[in-house]
Amino acid sequence: MLSNPRSDRVRAVHALTRRAVREREQAFLAEGPQAVREAVAFQPDVVREVYLTPAAAQRHPGIVDDARAAGLRVQTVTDEVLTAMGDTQAPQGMLAVCRRLDVTLDAVLAGDPRLVCVLTHVRDPGNAGTVLRGADAVGADAVVVSEASVDVYNPKVVRSTVGSLFHLPVVVGVPVEEVLGRLRGHGIRLLAADGHGDQLLTAPAVERRLAAPHAWVMGNEAWGMPEETRALCDDVVRVPIHGHAESLNLAMAATVCLYASARALHDDAPH
Amino acid sequence: MLSNPRSDRVRAVHALTRRAVREREQAFLAEGPQAVREAVAFQPDVVREVYLTPAAAQRHPGIVDDARAAGLRVQTVTDEVLTAMGDTQAPQGMLAVCRRLDVTLDAVLAGDPRLVCVLTHVRDPGNAGTVLRGADAVGADAVVVSEASVDVYNPKVVRSTVGSLFHLPVVVGVPVEEVLGRLRGHGIRLLAADGHGDQLLTAPAVERRLAAPHAWVMGNEAWGMPEETRALCDDVVRVPIHGHAESLNLAMAATVCLYASARALHDDAPH
Repeated sequence: MLSNPRSDRVRAVHALTRRAVREREQAFLAEGPQAVREAVAFQPDVVREVYLTPAAAQRHPGIVDDARAAGLRVQTVTDEVLTAMGDTQAPQGMLAVCRRLDVTLDAVLAGDPRLVCVLTHVRDPGNAGTVLRGADAVGADAVVVSEASVDVYNPKVVRSTVGSLFHLPVVVGVPVEEVLGRLRGHGIRLLAADGHGDQLLTAPAVERRLAAPHAWVMGNEAWGMPEETRALCDDVVRVPIHGHAESLNLAMAATVCLYASARALHDDAPH
Repeated sequence: MLSNPRSDRVRAVHALTRRAVREREQAFLAEGPQAVREAVAFQPDVVREVYLTPAAAQRHPGIVDDARAAGLRVQTVTDEVLTAMGDTQAPQGMLAVCRRLDVTLDAVLAGDPRLVCVLTHVRDPGNAGTVLRGADAVGADAVVVSEASVDVYNPKVVRSTVGSLFHLPVVVGVPVEEVLGRLRGHGIRLLAADGHGDQLLTAPAVERRLAAPHAWVMGNEAWGMPEETRALCDDVVRVPIHGHAESLNLAMAATVCLYASARALHDDAPH
């Protein structure tokens, strides 16, 4: 059992709360039982170590069994050590150190994706994580987080994906123009979601487009999308507003757009 | 210009950040230019006073003009006073003290509502505010926040509604059972939104129901809806999950359900 919260190992884990260290080490933290469970179940190859308190091990025997069955290192630590390792005050007794799991845009395109979600200039970790969770929920084929956005391995993003980060391919670090150019070159229609869009999400022409391969392009939460990004998209689509609300927040707008896609794309029964 | 942050008046305004004081005074705080603008534009009768810094007055001349045109008291204060009055560190130079604006369930029912959103046991202020904003966006006729939920006049709820609190009727303080009984007695079908629901939101039978008067009943963000509340509803509906996500968060699920209603209810073109 690790019990010294000031040991080099504990410091090295905690250092992953800093972006520069995550990039140097090509690793990040998955905190809490839900994130660790999904990492172990969906991406055991990227999990380097699982750290947990004796109480958490008792509370979640299934996670421990699955981790051991996958041949992963499971290390028991004191509450104090776990708290010193993590980003939050209450990591709920468990965290995993994982290798970055982003994939290349080439790998995504090779799978002929039908639904892609592109985040450009999204800065708020909670928004980015929530959109990623929504993309997972609608069965999107990939999420692309462009260069100018928040780091998806930021502990706050990881937490707000509630495990979805481990469920679908995520592409990071590619400039927006390149992302959009490559997607379009692959026959994927680009729909910008923008409160000032000239087309309504519920217009029959837009609904028809959602039945073919397409990508939703989301802009910044506060100032939307730069004109040059909007100009690279095929359509600029707005979610209808029926009442007096001025707008929806980014995560709500993304969720409505993604569910419109799911409705058009999936004929098979969801679970 | 008010300049003493320790004056009785400043203390009295700041005291409205506490629930007990809000209830005693039947008043609450709307912080920031957007909330104040919407309060002045949509509910000038409930605004008691507008407090703002000289810089904010310069930046938002329209709000000041509208407030004066509505005969409201507009009081200039120092930055220090404004900060001492508010709940946040950065109230963006402006706040209004407003009378509670909740209406009775009778008044809502008298309008023969077609779409109502009921929050039961919703505890997180951000979630409650976001759902209220979503209800506004889809043109819901009213939001009912049951007795067991967060106080809608909590400054965090008010902020996250981004003005929507002033746009549509809100009913508070009625026990869940009474709310559901009264709605049903008025011919309004009750749809519980629940991740474990036995009916899919996209099922043709559910979509047909959304074209008639109905209410969405939302439960707690963490533990969902108590069995006794679910049992009082006509249908228990889940948002389809196509990928591996375990669930959607409350605000996302509510947004998807409400937009499904909007799609079924509104034939007229939204703006």
